[in-house]
Amino acid sequence: MPRYKLTIEYDGNPFSGWQMQPNRPSVQAALEDAVKALTGSASTVHGAGRTDAGVHALGQVAHLDVERNWEPGILRNALNAHLRPNPVSILSVEPASGDFHARFSATRRHYLYRIVTRRAPLALERGRAWWLPTALEAGAMHAAAQLLVGRHDFTTFRAADCQAKSPVKTLDRLDVARIGDAIEIRAAARSFLHHQVRSMVGSLKLVGEGKWRMQDIADALAAADRCRCGPVAPAHGLYLVQVDY
Amino acid sequence: MPRYKLTIEYDGNPFSGWQMQPNRPSVQAALEDAVKALTGSASTVHGAGRTDAGVHALGQVAHLDVERNWEPGILRNALNAHLRPNPVSILSVEPASGDFHARFSATRRHYLYRIVTRRAPLALERGRAWWLPTALEAGAMHAAAQLLVGRHDFTTFRAADCQAKSPVKTLDRLDVARIGDAIEIRAAARSFLHHQVRSMVGSLKLVGEGKWRMQDIADALAAADRCRCGPVAPAHGLYLVQVDY
Repeated sequence: MPRYKLTIEYDGNPFSGWQMQPNRPSVQAALEDAVKALTGSASTVHGAGRTDAGVHALGQVAHLDVERNWEPGILRNALNAHLRPNPVSILSVEPASGDFHARFSATRRHYLYRIVTRRAPLALERGRAWWLPTALEAGAMHAAAQLLVGRHDFTTFRAADCQAKSPVKTLDRLDVARIGDAIEIRAAARSFLHHQVRSMVGSLKLVGEGKWRMQDIADALAAADRCRCGPVAPAHGLYLVQVDY
Repeated sequence: MPRYKLTIEYDGNPFSGWQMQPNRPSVQAALEDAVKALTGSASTVHGAGRTDAGVHALGQVAHLDVERNWEPGILRNALNAHLRPNPVSILSVEPASGDFHARFSATRRHYLYRIVTRRAPLALERGRAWWLPTALEAGAMHAAAQLLVGRHDFTTFRAADCQAKSPVKTLDRLDVARIGDAIEIRAAARSFLHHQVRSMVGSLKLVGEGKWRMQDIADALAAADRCRCGPVAPAHGLYLVQVDY
């Protein structure tokens, strides 16, 4: 059966996450329903990253097998028509080889975490950034973030229910930059532990507030103890931006 | 009674517009309800621009009179608390003199109209930009827009129900720029006719598609005939950005 690679944008707010769950709306179920409505047959849509409830995607990648060949642009448009009114949009469809797997073939995942610091709550960006009423010191956050880059045991920054075999991961990039009243944190790695980005952001926020110093980040990482993590940052500031193959 | 100037951000999607209407949600009613909940007294909130249903604001300005003096930051925070869960946020509160009027003292209003051109529908920006599946020629749109800048009879670009005494207005700025797959149109004038920005954008879109040439914009303006306007652009791409005094 022909295999296709999909690049997908979605607003995570109305979903219980990427992954299908009984009686709860998921991005995967919205996509599989659209495929079934179009083709008449059930197909599994395999995603590169199983984003949590509320997490957004600018460039999630998935693959699926269908029974016949489609012109990619026509398949994209037809699936988008069936996806309405879900806030899920297929940006592109490409033919893929039979050994391409959206999850297992991925070589790098890129995430963005957005914080907006201002006194007034968010109206237009509500549900799309973490609102904090007080300023953060982005320079201190960036310096501390560099302590996390590289190959480490990330147990401190891993959810209790994380199913990865090993807590050792290589973090390729963790950059913190201020853009107006926004703080943008960009993370890249071959793969991440469950809640790893949000756990790192929650701890860096303490650095930005002056409550933690760089050494506290180093100590938290070295402790390899979940109890040493700062409060996990909320899901709605996180975006899966890109997946490399 | 002390007078305060408010600068306000809102998501226009859930509202029937700025102006209070019986049994329909409006931004003005949300603000007046918050004032009454805070102070116990009814106050009218006067806005600089009566934005239509679905139109957003990044910097609407309003004024109101209250019975006692407030520290501006405390008044902002208290009103924002009472505004929840409406997507309306007061960015700043400043004391104003008794002769300040948000609408009549304004010397210039700035609007932004956002179009996103791409094959895939919008997921994250749905309701926040006009989605068009085909590209527009921004350079041609900008050149045609310059024919509208200056003092003109804008009858062609005026809603049938517009209540302004004269159709003659001075348009200070109408710039069209491409930024990635977005087209941003920035307009500034002392005041605008009802639907003027959306009418101009709808006609410029025809230029961007190659359906109209520059001369068609000049002819439409010179005709001073509503029937010569292109289809009016949708409300949800429009933002009231700033009001000058």
